[in-house]
Amino acid sequence: MSINNPHIKSFVPPQRTLMGPGPSDVPQRILDAMQRPTIGHLDPAFQDMMEEIKSLLRYAFQTENPLTFPVSAPGSAGMEMCFVNLVEPGNKVIVCVNGVFGGRMLENVKRTGGVPVVVEDEWGKPVSVAKVEQAFKDNPDTKVLAFVHAETSTGAQSDAKSLAELARKHGALTIMDCVTSLGGTPVLIDEWGIDAAYSGSQKCLSCTPGLSPVTFSEGAIEKVKVRKTPVQSWFLDLNLVLGYWQSAGKRTYHHTAPINPLYGLHEALVILSEEGLENAWSRHRTMHEKLRNGLEGMDLKFVVEESARLPQLNSVWIPEGVDDAAARTRLLSEFNLEIGAGLGALAGKVWRIGLMGYSAKAQNVDFCLKALKAVLA
Amino acid sequence: MSINNPHIKSFVPPQRTLMGPGPSDVPQRILDAMQRPTIGHLDPAFQDMMEEIKSLLRYAFQTENPLTFPVSAPGSAGMEMCFVNLVEPGNKVIVCVNGVFGGRMLENVKRTGGVPVVVEDEWGKPVSVAKVEQAFKDNPDTKVLAFVHAETSTGAQSDAKSLAELARKHGALTIMDCVTSLGGTPVLIDEWGIDAAYSGSQKCLSCTPGLSPVTFSEGAIEKVKVRKTPVQSWFLDLNLVLGYWQSAGKRTYHHTAPINPLYGLHEALVILSEEGLENAWSRHRTMHEKLRNGLEGMDLKFVVEESARLPQLNSVWIPEGVDDAAARTRLLSEFNLEIGAGLGALAGKVWRIGLMGYSAKAQNVDFCLKALKAVLA
Repeated sequence: MSINNPHIKSFVPPQRTLMGPGPSDVPQRILDAMQRPTIGHLDPAFQDMMEEIKSLLRYAFQTENPLTFPVSAPGSAGMEMCFVNLVEPGNKVIVCVNGVFGGRMLENVKRTGGVPVVVEDEWGKPVSVAKVEQAFKDNPDTKVLAFVHAETSTGAQSDAKSLAELARKHGALTIMDCVTSLGGTPVLIDEWGIDAAYSGSQKCLSCTPGLSPVTFSEGAIEKVKVRKTPVQSWFLDLNLVLGYWQSAGKRTYHHTAPINPLYGLHEALVILSEEGLENAWSRHRTMHEKLRNGLEGMDLKFVVEESARLPQLNSVWIPEGVDDAAARTRLLSEFNLEIGAGLGALAGKVWRIGLMGYSAKAQNVDFCLKALKAVLA
Repeated sequence: MSINNPHIKSFVPPQRTLMGPGPSDVPQRILDAMQRPTIGHLDPAFQDMMEEIKSLLRYAFQTENPLTFPVSAPGSAGMEMCFVNLVEPGNKVIVCVNGVFGGRMLENVKRTGGVPVVVEDEWGKPVSVAKVEQAFKDNPDTKVLAFVHAETSTGAQSDAKSLAELARKHGALTIMDCVTSLGGTPVLIDEWGIDAAYSGSQKCLSCTPGLSPVTFSEGAIEKVKVRKTPVQSWFLDLNLVLGYWQSAGKRTYHHTAPINPLYGLHEALVILSEEGLENAWSRHRTMHEKLRNGLEGMDLKFVVEESARLPQLNSVWIPEGVDDAAARTRLLSEFNLEIGAGLGALAGKVWRIGLMGYSAKAQNVDFCLKALKAVLA
């Protein structure tokens, strides 16, 4: 016993208002669900709940894909699950990069041994459909098209429907990041014909962070089944995960699921189902308009042009002469309000104000505008 | 909108007594901690809590390793983090297999492109130190020794100290699975000289499942830094994770940490610190003896011989003529009691009775013995 007991006390977090890029405010109903009694991950009651989560996620994703479930890890792991399963060494992948998360997709392609073809767009702009079309013409042997539907680092939304159409036309699978869009703006997996998509629990679903809802089409599963090389990750191998998340009664042990966080996700999806998808989308839109009016009234300028602007993630340029870190520190310490800093190339230049899930309400918009006014005065 | 709203109601789990191989019973204090208000993962208050978790984990692991933290995913991901970082393609790895989880280590070695040298022992027996010594003599170019300290599939404990000594003598790093031992029986990372170890939150720490405490020695970090090939996983790349879990103030964004589950782990570690490690170990020992006396009184035979028996995981042979599944179903439906089934080669042949963390108490032992007697009558 060489290492002494540190004698640390229980942690009691402050009560914040979360209006950054996620986590968003978590409703008490979800927090209450998370503290219900833990049961075993092979308990029939838990397996029934898993089936309900799958069904609720299919509604959220607007898909009939049987393989729709939450990965037992954050969105980054959901992203990696898509790439390690659908990309084999030597496969050509068109990767669209218009922000941090497109760049992360590129990183994933490289680590799977895929051959990336990068389509770059300016940060804050949507992915250019014309450039992707050209990339397909130049690379007819492309196996996968990967793009971010809603770039969390900029607040730009891309035209997923047209991009997926191009991929289908050229015989490629699509991988789509919808971490920030799911539950906030339309994500129509089947209508658009997306083959693999991943999201996060802590954005417009307003659950605590740590889980990544994913969905895979029959075409994607087919690709996994005919792979010539084994999937490089054991934890994320769909062949193994399939046996775990398949219909109750036949379940085989893979890993121990995060029971209580899944109670939380179940409750988050029940709340979404009670509100209805269209109502949730329209609430995000309305709250965005209210916030936009207030921000523009303060002469703050948006990074993204109106046609591609995500209602749930509002990036604005930091006014000249304002100290980014000092302003955010004041918001946190004086108002208990969190807004997001800029990431990557936009660090120090923009603020990202989230209106996601439970945070997308009039009370939060008013509060945020008031606090910003005080800090910028 | 082609997929209809499933209109599912909130989930209310039954109240079980968890005496399987994990999750174990979760104390109300931990459940209460998990429903505290969510804050941002870059909030200074959260970063302070992360530092406390690291310090509490160093105490639990008995190590001064700065790089000691919880992976934001279950134990299987903690295992994979150790292998993808410390094994490069072509590296020879001695893997000890005496149960399911040794087999999973082997699977990990293969997927990283390592060259496995398998040392096999019968399921239920500890790893043979003599065989490992021979394997090192036969393979002087071995880079890593990997073994399971406490095999969750059988209840056998291996001699980690002697195994680590062998590895050091032969210039190899050690990777140790201590998923089931941490907090239940001594795990002495620094004293034994272990280079990488991973555990789980839901065993003797009695937290909810979903997090994997890990620790890495300076030697392990050195190996990661001089790798010739990139780590194949982005999510588990220690080079990136290092920037995220390093001291507060310098933290760079990697992924969004599972905030509320980490509140739970913090509380679980505070409880362990309040009890003290030695007291926790001795409680597990005492409860095991009480359970053993009761089981032997019912003529149930242990799978593992006494010298290698884990107090926190009691594997017994299912008596002849008893229907495994039917008996466990009765325990669950009539007593709300979960015990574990056999895994792999032991499926249908053994039961695994867990006495882990909060489940290791006299009340549970008495209850379990009473329920077993009723079902076996």
